[in-house]
Amino acid sequence: MTENLSGYRGKILAALIESKVQVGDLIRITKGKETYEGILIPRSEFGDDKHIVIKLKSGYNIGIEVTEATKIAKLSVEMKPSFISASLPKQNFNLPKVTIVSTGGTIASRVDYRTGAVKPVISANDLYSIVPELSDIATIDTEILFSMFSEDLTSKHWTEIAKTVAQHVSKGVDGVVVTHGTDTIGYTAAALSFALQNLPVPVVLVGAQRSEDRPSSDAASNLVGAVVAASRAPFAEVTVAMHESISDEAITLHLGTKVRKLHTSRRDAFKTVNTLPLGKVLNGEVLMLRKDYQTRDKERKLVLKPQFDDRVALIKFYPGMNAKIIDWHVEVGYKGIILEGSGLGHVCREFFPSVKRAIENNVIVAMTSQCIWGRVNMNVYTNGRDLIAIGVVPLQDMLAETALVKLMWILGQTSDANETKNLLVTNMSHEISRRSTIDVPYKNLGLSQMEA
Amino acid sequence: MTENLSGYRGKILAALIESKVQVGDLIRITKGKETYEGILIPRSEFGDDKHIVIKLKSGYNIGIEVTEATKIAKLSVEMKPSFISASLPKQNFNLPKVTIVSTGGTIASRVDYRTGAVKPVISANDLYSIVPELSDIATIDTEILFSMFSEDLTSKHWTEIAKTVAQHVSKGVDGVVVTHGTDTIGYTAAALSFALQNLPVPVVLVGAQRSEDRPSSDAASNLVGAVVAASRAPFAEVTVAMHESISDEAITLHLGTKVRKLHTSRRDAFKTVNTLPLGKVLNGEVLMLRKDYQTRDKERKLVLKPQFDDRVALIKFYPGMNAKIIDWHVEVGYKGIILEGSGLGHVCREFFPSVKRAIENNVIVAMTSQCIWGRVNMNVYTNGRDLIAIGVVPLQDMLAETALVKLMWILGQTSDANETKNLLVTNMSHEISRRSTIDVPYKNLGLSQMEA
Repeated sequence: MTENLSGYRGKILAALIESKVQVGDLIRITKGKETYEGILIPRSEFGDDKHIVIKLKSGYNIGIEVTEATKIAKLSVEMKPSFISASLPKQNFNLPKVTIVSTGGTIASRVDYRTGAVKPVISANDLYSIVPELSDIATIDTEILFSMFSEDLTSKHWTEIAKTVAQHVSKGVDGVVVTHGTDTIGYTAAALSFALQNLPVPVVLVGAQRSEDRPSSDAASNLVGAVVAASRAPFAEVTVAMHESISDEAITLHLGTKVRKLHTSRRDAFKTVNTLPLGKVLNGEVLMLRKDYQTRDKERKLVLKPQFDDRVALIKFYPGMNAKIIDWHVEVGYKGIILEGSGLGHVCREFFPSVKRAIENNVIVAMTSQCIWGRVNMNVYTNGRDLIAIGVVPLQDMLAETALVKLMWILGQTSDANETKNLLVTNMSHEISRRSTIDVPYKNLGLSQMEA
Repeated sequence: MTENLSGYRGKILAALIESKVQVGDLIRITKGKETYEGILIPRSEFGDDKHIVIKLKSGYNIGIEVTEATKIAKLSVEMKPSFISASLPKQNFNLPKVTIVSTGGTIASRVDYRTGAVKPVISANDLYSIVPELSDIATIDTEILFSMFSEDLTSKHWTEIAKTVAQHVSKGVDGVVVTHGTDTIGYTAAALSFALQNLPVPVVLVGAQRSEDRPSSDAASNLVGAVVAASRAPFAEVTVAMHESISDEAITLHLGTKVRKLHTSRRDAFKTVNTLPLGKVLNGEVLMLRKDYQTRDKERKLVLKPQFDDRVALIKFYPGMNAKIIDWHVEVGYKGIILEGSGLGHVCREFFPSVKRAIENNVIVAMTSQCIWGRVNMNVYTNGRDLIAIGVVPLQDMLAETALVKLMWILGQTSDANETKNLLVTNMSHEISRRSTIDVPYKNLGLSQMEA
């Protein structure tokens, strides 16, 4: 029977066998006064041997620590809830039309309830079977574009994603959702922000920090939030939909050019930096936090500019760094360098001759800050002023990652140095925030609360 | 007279001339019902033409916007407050002894009240003249080691700072303060954390985000906090003292290995990542936030290990990055590489052959995350597991910057690969937090509040 109790070990495995339950069963766990009911799901091979994981009726997985006093009972042998059903839910064709383009990552995976293995989603049926409530929100079509870890995606994949999204938009859908691994979802969101201009409808990237087979998976709630935004949001912008906090309440809609993954594992790992998020999805509604968005308008004609030049480097500065790294990039043919400098936008003076040489060789060199928050200001100190004199372009409050993507995109459109520099410092898709003395309203990021 | 109104322009300059006040005068500014009294100080050449800057009795500078209704009056012609006096305040030799070692940066500068130029502090007199209350806290000795922008410091400077601090500690002082530019103060703090072992007294690094001639300078309050910590704190650890919030109330004492500059310009730019700060200075008292510190004990014998090997690189990964960057570092003789991977500690599979070759060439390759918060976990996904199989060392929740410094320091002590890898993953100075399910108590970082 243990093949149906995948991932469970030791005393828990024994208790489950004794209770005659197996993965997929609806069970009741009683601990003192507390009672939990849900579907027993398999553990990952990396899970501990102290918790049983069940999927609650709400769709969330929880882990319950098993002690001597814990009782386990099977409630129904045959019952299979809709989310592990293989049958297609009824579609209501009066609802908005949303296409889900899958590129891979945790969110595009589901557990095989017999083996516990994580498999990529391959059809609308599978998606519905994980998140059946999608059929109440929109009429869903799906396309599996890639099934990749996001750290393996390159600018060539950004081009493919942009083209695919554009195809679906041209068919008249009300919104497109792109499922994506979280590692580099911010880079791809920036890429789509520049490549998909004049959008008529929203393009919502979405990922998951925890796969369906782990306690507290965020896959279902993020996907629901993304489909709500794609089908109902008043904006036509590229956005990233991820949990606002560690609770399940709200899904934040981040600007595609201002979002950064700031925690390795938490469900609220994504934060909008230096400005307000676009909005949030709460109780099935889209609440806007900004007014400066392009409004949804299906008559608007999308302008697709999917070319990127991958001869651009992001170089993070550190004390004592060897300036020959700059020289190497120039020698092997790089056309652009984004420096991630210290503080207000500095590198050591040892770098200056190499930076000067790069610029003399028609390499565009621009400055961001490894501080992440704040704005580069290269006029305060001598080193900054000298870098400007050499020709380094200060990039205001742009994220280093967004700056890399933007320069790759610009060099995909033009080879003119002046045009490139002008475009770099021109706000195109919220990547540069206006300097403001008005404080962004208080919001607790709770980062110090994050468990390591 | 305008040479005595340095930096003031336009209507404000005219108003100041008309009021017959000059820089250094005690003045009263009246705006409706509000009255401000303080010393007129010069503006920076980059200041606007709308504000008068005065130094309040508290030592803080404020900028006051001047309108038609603003009245300016001189209160005393001859009065020169103690903080611009050239005479040495009386020292109370019963107080704890603190040495201030100056390396440069904004904090070690003061305004020349005649010219408005920022000059490095060069003597105890100068320090006292900026922050006279220091003489009530400790008996101060000073040493000017460097006068450099911190982005120009290298591991050779860390060695010099470590040796200099050790010399002063060996003379029996009660604590050492190191003034330092904020750009790389975190790197230097990590370096001292490893180089100065078995400390008998505190070593407190301190910087300033705004120089004395700018409104709301944090130089004086940070320095006072640092001297309080150096003279009275119960710990003997390397710490960084900087403002807790944008108000003036508390100075946070960050762990030297867990602190990161997270804003380009705010006074509360520094945050302790993934764990609690060591403590804080509030109302002249040191309040501890942790219990796991080495206690102050002047009988303890400092162990000085100031050697660093600068053949270590910090390489931040981005999508589509060229794996030949790894090859280049190996070819030019690097001995260690800290990868700043995506998410839980990933790089693209294209990197794997180069990483493998680096390790086969006896280069130590270790993994941190560009997420900053959280912990690398390379067991969850295939790419991570394969990197571990190749020999990449996962560095738990260590900051990438601290990992760079630690590997430079380890390779300064040993050339044995196994010893290096063992030391890397062994917690030496709080750089690795224990995994905990207990949430670190709530604290508002207010990062989204930060003005860009």
